[in-house]
Amino acid sequence: MKFTVKQIATLLEGEVAGNDALAITGLAKIEEGKPGDISFLSNLKYEPHLYTTQASAVIVDRSFEPKKPVVSALIFVENSYLAFTRLLEEYHKQLIFSRVGVEQPSYMGDGTEVGEQSYRGAFSYIGKNCQVGKNVKIYPQAYIGNNVRIGDNTIVHPGARILDNCIIGQYCVIHPNAVIGSEGFGFAPQSDGTYKTIPQLGNVILEDFVNVGSNTTIDCATMGSTIIRKGAKLDNLIQIGHNVEIGKNTVIAGQTGISGSTKIGDNCVIAGQVGFAGHLTIANGTKVGAQSGVGKNVDQEGTAINSSPAFGLKESMRSLAIFRKLPDLENRVTKLEKKNEKQS
Amino acid sequence: MKFTVKQIATLLEGEVAGNDALAITGLAKIEEGKPGDISFLSNLKYEPHLYTTQASAVIVDRSFEPKKPVVSALIFVENSYLAFTRLLEEYHKQLIFSRVGVEQPSYMGDGTEVGEQSYRGAFSYIGKNCQVGKNVKIYPQAYIGNNVRIGDNTIVHPGARILDNCIIGQYCVIHPNAVIGSEGFGFAPQSDGTYKTIPQLGNVILEDFVNVGSNTTIDCATMGSTIIRKGAKLDNLIQIGHNVEIGKNTVIAGQTGISGSTKIGDNCVIAGQVGFAGHLTIANGTKVGAQSGVGKNVDQEGTAINSSPAFGLKESMRSLAIFRKLPDLENRVTKLEKKNEKQS
Amino acid sequence: MKFTVKQIATLLEGEVAGNDALAITGLAKIEEGKPGDISFLSNLKYEPHLYTTQASAVIVDRSFEPKKPVVSALIFVENSYLAFTRLLEEYHKQLIFSRVGVEQPSYMGDGTEVGEQSYRGAFSYIGKNCQVGKNVKIYPQAYIGNNVRIGDNTIVHPGARILDNCIIGQYCVIHPNAVIGSEGFGFAPQSDGTYKTIPQLGNVILEDFVNVGSNTTIDCATMGSTIIRKGAKLDNLIQIGHNVEIGKNTVIAGQTGISGSTKIGDNCVIAGQVGFAGHLTIANGTKVGAQSGVGKNVDQEGTAINSSPAFGLKESMRSLAIFRKLPDLENRVTKLEKKNEKQS
Repeated sequence: MKFTVKQIATLLEGEVAGNDALAITGLAKIEEGKPGDISFLSNLKYEPHLYTTQASAVIVDRSFEPKKPVVSALIFVENSYLAFTRLLEEYHKQLIFSRVGVEQPSYMGDGTEVGEQSYRGAFSYIGKNCQVGKNVKIYPQAYIGNNVRIGDNTIVHPGARILDNCIIGQYCVIHPNAVIGSEGFGFAPQSDGTYKTIPQLGNVILEDFVNVGSNTTIDCATMGSTIIRKGAKLDNLIQIGHNVEIGKNTVIAGQTGISGSTKIGDNCVIAGQVGFAGHLTIANGTKVGAQSGVGKNVDQEGTAINSSPAFGLKESMRSLAIFRKLPDLENRVTKLEKKNEKQS
Repeated sequence: MKFTVKQIATLLEGEVAGNDALAITGLAKIEEGKPGDISFLSNLKYEPHLYTTQASAVIVDRSFEPKKPVVSALIFVENSYLAFTRLLEEYHKQLIFSRVGVEQPSYMGDGTEVGEQSYRGAFSYIGKNCQVGKNVKIYPQAYIGNNVRIGDNTIVHPGARILDNCIIGQYCVIHPNAVIGSEGFGFAPQSDGTYKTIPQLGNVILEDFVNVGSNTTIDCATMGSTIIRKGAKLDNLIQIGHNVEIGKNTVIAGQTGISGSTKIGDNCVIAGQVGFAGHLTIANGTKVGAQSGVGKNVDQEGTAINSSPAFGLKESMRSLAIFRKLPDLENRVTKLEKKNEKQS
Repeated sequence: MKFTVKQIATLLEGEVAGNDALAITGLAKIEEGKPGDISFLSNLKYEPHLYTTQASAVIVDRSFEPKKPVVSALIFVENSYLAFTRLLEEYHKQLIFSRVGVEQPSYMGDGTEVGEQSYRGAFSYIGKNCQVGKNVKIYPQAYIGNNVRIGDNTIVHPGARILDNCIIGQYCVIHPNAVIGSEGFGFAPQSDGTYKTIPQLGNVILEDFVNVGSNTTIDCATMGSTIIRKGAKLDNLIQIGHNVEIGKNTVIAGQTGISGSTKIGDNCVIAGQVGFAGHLTIANGTKVGAQSGVGKNVDQEGTAINSSPAFGLKESMRSLAIFRKLPDLENRVTKLEKKNEKQS
């Protein structure tokens, strides 16, 4: 980022007090601001930092009046917190879409087309007959197999792997070393104790605005598609089995695993390190506590479950509370037994 | 895949009714078949789809007689389900072994030999003094260190890493971004609270027909070898510690972790997200439930265990059932106490 | 490694009996020694192997007297076990720092400087304006973004990804396919059920002597830094959320996950598959049992906790012991109820 204070004030529809020609190159908390940084003051608890900060500029509310001299340029806006957030988003967008063009060496197979404003980093590989949209950023060392389609404005980070025939929507982000469309775990036991590989010939479909975290793996379907619906967000180190379907706007935290053919509804919130058995159907709006083990369907929308094996959240909290004092409960039983013995 | 209906009928030893010159380029379920696809009808529940499918050809049992006109070409065989499965396998084999030759740039160190019919993708790296067999497929961006041996017909997917001195058998599949032979977690605590690295100088041996899932990590032995025996199948995101041994035809589901020096027997079935402590011995044929934590040896073959810490499967099911109604059990105890108080 | 027996004896300050001109190329256990190997004999339980081993040389204690003829050269030292360990470490150091120079093709952006004695493997990528110290080993296919700093003697293994602005200390080891500094899981729920990305603009700082295991992911901070303090050791497949801080000399075993903004103290020992909720503070010297789920702060130094949700280790052991015999406890309650019924 390289802007003047004046340019930023114009973007945020604010007015400047101080030197509006200063160059801004970074964003920082007000207590950590260095020359070249821009910061903000919203919660007046932090006002003392305003008089000591090294930041070149600080965004403040229009209603704010400094009580001491301020070295930083001030940008007065309607809502300083929202203005700073907008600046963060603008800066972020610029950053992630800043790379354009082709670094060499990189590899592109026959019949593949890549849209304008895209980036292909050094050592990136795109197979044959792929259709890659506009403003797509393929980072160095990323791999894209044959017959893959990628929508506009999607980012494929370094070392991410997208295997043959997968379909990736617009505005998706595939984080480093994620694997999409690899062959899942399909093996048929034979009478001699060995296992025969069941061919996995389907693909993975990510709809628009899907996030796939670092080192997360999404297996292709046996036939048909493993599907991650629009706006779903997957954290790091998640395992998604073959033929799974994840609903719209469902968020899944790190290290959770979902076994083959399970369908998770829309708008679910699934915490970290959860496990789902295969072939389940989980209703829309289900909430699952961390480290839960889900072995049964959830039929009712908006259910909250917890524990391993998972059951109702409230019930599980009660059982877990008693679990912690089980020795006490056992003592109470022993006491009753002794009394009983005396009485008889 | 690109075959005529006639060629497929010959492969499956079947007879064609309809246009046997049609080109087949894909496989699909009968209800999803598009022109160019081949499908099958085995369960007659799906017979109505036969009269509406867009598939160019459908495999049916020899005994089957259509009740309405059919647009697709029909291939009559002894057992349509088995025939379709055979077609899937044939297609799969063709697909995975279809790449041959060397894409540039790729790197190969001195003294390394690669067998015929092999593939080395762009940006793949093979170090010095490696012996790579026939029909081995080293995908783009895969890494193979020095002194590695790889048997015939093995596939190393994009971004997989095989470190120095590892020995990989025949017909193994190493999925994307798996790491084989990295240095494990060996640190000796020092008196000042710091840790000293214990050199990890051994290797990993994969015997024949081993499957290593995406983003799975297998650490090299401290000295000697970490060994994965013939036919063992590891899913995605599994952690195998140094000096571990996994028995023949043992299958391990995703996100399971096995600590250093533990020996797992043959023909075990281990579910997902299981953890094993180090230095254990687990008998042949052991079955371990999902999310279990195994802290003790399993001596008896064919034992089923569950829960964390793990104990007998049946016993654990009983304890877990009572766990869910612990508040009820506590109420019963409270009631007894109250009665007792009255009585005394 | 390629040394003569004499050179090794000199390094270890020992005396040779036998052929001191033999070439040593490997290290092995005495029972597995082959020609070219060096081994050691410390525990006299293994003495019989000395008379049958194929190893070219064996390190023994100065006080040791063979009872039979020995084919191997013997190196007499003060303490054979420590001498062998020293040899292992020397060999290991040589191995890991042996690669020097630049393999082509590799990529280096403008304004980046790399110190002497460093290695940059084929297909490695270093972005713009990076400062890479002396004797740093960047293995093939590793990725380093823009504005990254890496201290002397650090090793970045194949496929490891270090994203923009991260700061890596001296003597760190980043194992294959680890991801450092990717954008974490920050999404703000919107009123229509969708999620908006919260820009993640901070970085990751690894202080000196930090180990990051294979396929481990460390997210960058939202603003500021995710910090891994000096000497901390992270195993494979660990997830570290944004703005987390890990204290000095803390060791964390495989597949553990730490949610955003949690601060772990110094000298903690955290077992495998543990989960930490976000925004916690964990005191120095805390010990956490495998598969625990930590949902609360730990205030007292040196606390041992266990179970999910985690509580005191001893207490949890007692509760878990009773959990296993819950059916028995329920029977006792039922018995009491029946007696009571009779009595009333």
